[in-house]
Amino acid sequence: MKKFAVLGCGVVGSGVVELFEKNKALIEKRCGQTLEMGYILDLRDFPDRPYANLLVKSIDPILADPDVAVVAECMGGIEPAFTFVKSCLEAGKSVATSNKELVAAKGDILLQTAKEHDCNFFFEASVGGAIPIIRPLHKCLAANDFSAIAGILNGTTNFILNKMIKENMDFETALALAQEKGYAEKDPTADVDGHDACRKICILSSLAFGKHVYPESVHTQGIRNVALKDVELCNQLGYSIKLIARVQRLENGKILPTVMPMAVEEDNLLSQVNGVYNAVMVRGDGISKAMFYGRGAGKLPTASAVLGDMIEEVQLDHTIPSQTWVNVGNTDFIEDFSAFSAKRYFRTTTADVHTLTEIFGELENRTVSTEDDETVFIVSASMNAADVDRAVKALAAKNIQVLAQYPVLVS
Amino acid sequence: MKKFAVLGCGVVGSGVVELFEKNKALIEKRCGQTLEMGYILDLRDFPDRPYANLLVKSIDPILADPDVAVVAECMGGIEPAFTFVKSCLEAGKSVATSNKELVAAKGDILLQTAKEHDCNFFFEASVGGAIPIIRPLHKCLAANDFSAIAGILNGTTNFILNKMIKENMDFETALALAQEKGYAEKDPTADVDGHDACRKICILSSLAFGKHVYPESVHTQGIRNVALKDVELCNQLGYSIKLIARVQRLENGKILPTVMPMAVEEDNLLSQVNGVYNAVMVRGDGISKAMFYGRGAGKLPTASAVLGDMIEEVQLDHTIPSQTWVNVGNTDFIEDFSAFSAKRYFRTTTADVHTLTEIFGELENRTVSTEDDETVFIVSASMNAADVDRAVKALAAKNIQVLAQYPVLVS
Repeated sequence: MKKFAVLGCGVVGSGVVELFEKNKALIEKRCGQTLEMGYILDLRDFPDRPYANLLVKSIDPILADPDVAVVAECMGGIEPAFTFVKSCLEAGKSVATSNKELVAAKGDILLQTAKEHDCNFFFEASVGGAIPIIRPLHKCLAANDFSAIAGILNGTTNFILNKMIKENMDFETALALAQEKGYAEKDPTADVDGHDACRKICILSSLAFGKHVYPESVHTQGIRNVALKDVELCNQLGYSIKLIARVQRLENGKILPTVMPMAVEEDNLLSQVNGVYNAVMVRGDGISKAMFYGRGAGKLPTASAVLGDMIEEVQLDHTIPSQTWVNVGNTDFIEDFSAFSAKRYFRTTTADVHTLTEIFGELENRTVSTEDDETVFIVSASMNAADVDRAVKALAAKNIQVLAQYPVLVS
Repeated sequence: MKKFAVLGCGVVGSGVVELFEKNKALIEKRCGQTLEMGYILDLRDFPDRPYANLLVKSIDPILADPDVAVVAECMGGIEPAFTFVKSCLEAGKSVATSNKELVAAKGDILLQTAKEHDCNFFFEASVGGAIPIIRPLHKCLAANDFSAIAGILNGTTNFILNKMIKENMDFETALALAQEKGYAEKDPTADVDGHDACRKICILSSLAFGKHVYPESVHTQGIRNVALKDVELCNQLGYSIKLIARVQRLENGKILPTVMPMAVEEDNLLSQVNGVYNAVMVRGDGISKAMFYGRGAGKLPTASAVLGDMIEEVQLDHTIPSQTWVNVGNTDFIEDFSAFSAKRYFRTTTADVHTLTEIFGELENRTVSTEDDETVFIVSASMNAADVDRAVKALAAKNIQVLAQYPVLVS
């Protein structure tokens, strides 16, 4: 018999309790032993809830109970989660967390602490909700040298962009709908401005390349300024605008993590990932490419990932070397965003394709000119920020403005 | 330091050797220790190959070497693979295999043997090539009660159907092209008649539901009789015909595994899985649904999966309870195919939609009538085999023939 504790009884924590109780027999069979819910830590009072007898307000009884083998951290935020998780690991109790903010900011320290105490810090639920991605990345795909990861890692922004594409809603209306449906917070900054996706690509980058990537090192741009017009016109060119969190390894060996709206070609499966679903595409030298798709958030989907970690932990009795990364103390391994180069979508104030070709070189076959004399097109050559600047200046000299531009995802 | 051995140096075995040598430093880092290739067993002679010094023709030196912790079985077929694998497990050496025939026929015995000797029988590479699916299913998703799995599990048939859809090739031409490109064997029976997909859905069903499902218990129908005309017309209705390997759990608790061509709606991601790619959609009560996508076969993709298993094994020192199933000695838990019920695509020799509606009840909005007075349509109600028989007879009484019918995938 082993026991577990749940820290934080909000959406995810109560999902862990619910899914465990529902599938207890099945879970114990898969664990190979009986498993008991020992403690639920929450600073709030829940007098009417079931399991009121398990509620505690301090981490101490959890730390002191030798039967507690694994702790589910579902509090969110950095403190007190960090202090609690660290104490658990130091007491030799493994932790499974859904807290991406914690993993992105403190993963290196917590992984090291786990290693030192021969237990594990698991975080499958921190990226992609229900989607198995952390374990596949460091176990199933462990023989691969990774070259790129690209994902739709935030369901709220994907829902908003989807409503814009499919129902011609503008950004503000789609955001209000997402808030009404409970997909977006009252303060939608973390989702809409890309910070949530940024934390997740930090975690995937750190795991794939072995060095801690902090959110501050990632060029992060959200979807607040994506115009409905661009979503529609880009679609007519055969592309969808999606918020893509991505990391690529460059020829110089450095990695370049980014979060930004990108134009994704129709025949790329990522363009077909709709609504609140998430997906992650991974490139490696053995697999070529693989994709993982599922619900990116929500009570039971996230609980499923936390419990999956806990079930693995119950079957283990030591730390797992493949799931780790280190803080190298500098960011020299991260390339500057100015080196980012890609094919690009442009919207300009001219219908004169000849002039556009003079400045940009070859354009992809399809261009669309609108009634108000704007033209949208995809430039065939790869352009970095400096190339874009030069083109913008050359156009300005001819009294042509660039109204929007998005890089094209090549995954 | 641990050593491994490779049994069988064909496509997959030589891929394991190649990918290991290429990424040795990375793999050892992820293993947390050094790893050495100790033996390559093959009954053939390879005098000019590298690693000729590692070649052996008997399993005995591998069994006798205490440093060999894990063995990659890439021979294919049931014997001598079964005897070799069983001896390895009995010697406490874990095995990673790409051999779906072996797992589908003998998985229960080999899993039991592994358990008894506190080692592991791993088979990530046996389903979906490079795609992580075995480990996600029994680890990441272990908190879920599964209700269905549906997949495109054979790249050869998917390539053929794709050529039919996209390039209007008939079956024979597309098969010849697949053979020319090396995707199909000279004797394409195992792929084309669904036996390969059948073995894979047996493995997934056994793992998800805990009881060994043998290929003989699975209704298996291949794509040999799929007419180009149906592929095209079905497409006009908004569906793609795909060879779908599937298992569902029915309300009576029994499971129903099937392999057959099915009509897959455009907005189902499985309909977008093209060429030699594979994908598996999993439904569970925690996750709702998740999908896994990647290369279903090939030298390095399959080697990536075998090595992933080996890397996990090197980090372990005991058997994993969650990855197992048992032979229950009967097939009472498997429902008869006559209970299979689904919406259906039909092609009939009449353009008289009124008569069709009389017999089938409501049809989906779109129907297509051809120049030669045939009509294709989707019946809205769910029909089992007896319902189809009744409809066929009722149509025959009016001199109308059913030329083709395919069930619709609801996943």
